[in-house]
Amino acid sequence: MRRESRPAKRVAIIGGGTVGSGVYQALERNGTLLSGRLGTRLEVNRVVVRDPDKKRNIAFPREILHTGWRAAVEDRETDIVVELIGGTTTAREVVEHALRLGKPVVTANKALLSDHGESLFALARRSNAGLHYEASVAGGIPIIKVLREGLAGNRILGMYGILNGTCNYILTRMERAELDFDHALRQAQRKGYAEADPTLDVDGLDAMHKAGILASLASGMWVPPASIHVEGIRAITRKDIEFAARLGYRIKLLASIRPEDGFFPDEASGEGRLQVSVCPTLISEDHPLATIHGVDNAVWLVGDVVGELLFSGPGAGREATASAVLADLIDATRNQAPPTERFGTGGSLRAWDEMDSEYFIRLRVADRPGTMAAVAGVLSRAGIGISSIIQPEQHGGSGETTLILMVHDAPNRIITGALDRIGELPVVKSPPMSLRVEHFEALERTRNRDRGSVDAEPDREERSP
Amino acid sequence: MRRESRPAKRVAIIGGGTVGSGVYQALERNGTLLSGRLGTRLEVNRVVVRDPDKKRNIAFPREILHTGWRAAVEDRETDIVVELIGGTTTAREVVEHALRLGKPVVTANKALLSDHGESLFALARRSNAGLHYEASVAGGIPIIKVLREGLAGNRILGMYGILNGTCNYILTRMERAELDFDHALRQAQRKGYAEADPTLDVDGLDAMHKAGILASLASGMWVPPASIHVEGIRAITRKDIEFAARLGYRIKLLASIRPEDGFFPDEASGEGRLQVSVCPTLISEDHPLATIHGVDNAVWLVGDVVGELLFSGPGAGREATASAVLADLIDATRNQAPPTERFGTGGSLRAWDEMDSEYFIRLRVADRPGTMAAVAGVLSRAGIGISSIIQPEQHGGSGETTLILMVHDAPNRIITGALDRIGELPVVKSPPMSLRVEHFEALERTRNRDRGSVDAEPDREERSP
Repeated sequence: MRRESRPAKRVAIIGGGTVGSGVYQALERNGTLLSGRLGTRLEVNRVVVRDPDKKRNIAFPREILHTGWRAAVEDRETDIVVELIGGTTTAREVVEHALRLGKPVVTANKALLSDHGESLFALARRSNAGLHYEASVAGGIPIIKVLREGLAGNRILGMYGILNGTCNYILTRMERAELDFDHALRQAQRKGYAEADPTLDVDGLDAMHKAGILASLASGMWVPPASIHVEGIRAITRKDIEFAARLGYRIKLLASIRPEDGFFPDEASGEGRLQVSVCPTLISEDHPLATIHGVDNAVWLVGDVVGELLFSGPGAGREATASAVLADLIDATRNQAPPTERFGTGGSLRAWDEMDSEYFIRLRVADRPGTMAAVAGVLSRAGIGISSIIQPEQHGGSGETTLILMVHDAPNRIITGALDRIGELPVVKSPPMSLRVEHFEALERTRNRDRGSVDAEPDREERSP
Repeated sequence: MRRESRPAKRVAIIGGGTVGSGVYQALERNGTLLSGRLGTRLEVNRVVVRDPDKKRNIAFPREILHTGWRAAVEDRETDIVVELIGGTTTAREVVEHALRLGKPVVTANKALLSDHGESLFALARRSNAGLHYEASVAGGIPIIKVLREGLAGNRILGMYGILNGTCNYILTRMERAELDFDHALRQAQRKGYAEADPTLDVDGLDAMHKAGILASLASGMWVPPASIHVEGIRAITRKDIEFAARLGYRIKLLASIRPEDGFFPDEASGEGRLQVSVCPTLISEDHPLATIHGVDNAVWLVGDVVGELLFSGPGAGREATASAVLADLIDATRNQAPPTERFGTGGSLRAWDEMDSEYFIRLRVADRPGTMAAVAGVLSRAGIGISSIIQPEQHGGSGETTLILMVHDAPNRIITGALDRIGELPVVKSPPMSLRVEHFEALERTRNRDRGSVDAEPDREERSP
């Protein structure tokens, strides 16, 4: 069979916005390259938009612009459907309709997958049609393929991600340019890194959707977004970033995915639980994730066989997203990555209240004898150990000062209760600020593996067995 | 069809050394997990070794240990052959024999692939049998899958790798513990990171093989190892590392893969050339690759669509390599990643002598007037521009001093000629030391793309096209 003689694959792009036009342009630009690699041409036969006459930053050929998604999906010439309209209602109809027709779907829609992934993947399996979603998490970083295939022989003992470029940009600006949150947010908006209504990004909802998808893929159980503890970055102040830095930490909006006590939900025997959260977190400045600046995304993970890996790159953007969509189109064309995701086999999620965390606590307190005793007394009665105390400011004339406490591991509900009581102390002058601290230590305990020999290239001397 | 009812896939492991036993153990440990993900069991039916009675760090069941590779490959029960004996003679016979029988092969053998990849991949295509080689480059980092599939929609505009953990460990120790090369090498040997004869690692040959494989995969033309310019790290001194650090650089053994002037060899129109080299190189301490320490490996690349990506992790070691072999076994079982590599379509390699480089030059010179004029005169007559001059030492009583020059881009043969003449100057007291400097600037010129909008998530507002 000569590869070159295969018929072209026809692609319907539903949604002609930023990403849709990026995909179209990348296919135009690298079409020859792709044909060579695939032995098949990829041809866009329809681009479905709401208003074909709207002015766009790229001019689609008028003859491929259409307005009805249903006709495009049902078109017998359409081999592959690319859903790029976003949202979870029409987009869901598009994806379900295509899968029911047995047509492979490529989507960048993290909200749709996170909310309805379990049923969509089940539909893909029943229909034997691939559901490809590389672009839904971490933009141009091929983390879905890495997890799904490249590390398929591993149990993921822990996975931590910087999954929202907007938040990482804001936190980077707050740190480097010493801006407060509002100022950094306005900068991000001016640069086009944040939307006019930044809620989805800065309140952590976008990262939550991505964390849900990664957690489901890594664990084999479906992790719905509602089950994920989420905190955004609005409450972070310059002071927090500055004090964290003095202690050797950076603050990142961190998605954390950790099996409790090394448990892995897709074990047949599955007891134990998965822990998933998205919240601003102090991580050591020496950790690889601390080097991720600006709008970049990154995933750092530990596999039981492979050890520690870092992947970083552009987490969003027209072209980074287009790169991921192209990879999925190629898989769909090769009929590679057939539907294998099966979710829901055993396992459960550990509630946030029950998870253990270390904390950084910042208090505004009365600058007088007895203050520390009162605060320490509350923590002591709650059974929370203090690992260090810093009073970073010179005593001044205001009668108030800042107190930073680092406390040992305790269940979040215990910490929350203690912070409530501390907030009620007369010596405490404003509501306590608390941030999780991640030392990634549980991974060391969990891993429990021989990391001895690193010199394990295949034997170099020729053998003749 | 119930997936669980599929027959087991039987795997023959040729080579029971460090990696072979790692693969066997990982399959034992994660067997249930893999069966669940694959819907098929993976069973090791033979492990071929030279001496079944040799004492090993893991005890293979006696009944699967055999001594003849040919019988194991030909065994009708063997579905997949894993070649882990290393070397390029018997290993080549094993791989060719298996492919001719139409059996998929998994190999970690970078020397075999680099030396004979063109014919082996052609054989795999003719036999329609997969040749899987994730473990051959960068250990546990799934860089082959990323390039071959995850970034298949991209032209790789530049790819730079730290591909030898032994060299990176030695350079890290030289930098951090202020050791000289011999001392750092002995440390690496004591820790099992370097072999008693460290030639393959420290002279850059191991990295050369890996660079050849990556360059071939990225460019679509076969890059034989003999065509790659290679320099090892034996000549690096503490002084070089120290002076480089003062200038804001780190020294890494860097594999560089760059198309000349943005040319890409697998274009139909292919003029222009690919540039591939492996040599100790100064890179800015701000570059992501400068953060890669110890035995870790990393690949940093720029794709024309995706932009810049970094991948890092363990580059060797029993378990990291086993993780890559497992991923290949899974692909082979899913019959995924069918043979697609086709090499040799147009393009050529640019000779080292013709490539442009910037250089760091360290000279031991007479500490007297006229020295700088003599050195600068040679460079000037060769048309080489000086970007900075540092005389880092206090003038002492020895009558000699160190002179560091940073020079602008020039063809390597011009630099080499000028250095020869400088070495002959009476004021120069020992042979000049020169090291390439990589600023990754050509990428910026080449990329020439709109990097404007980063806010290109799919439109969040629901549309009903």
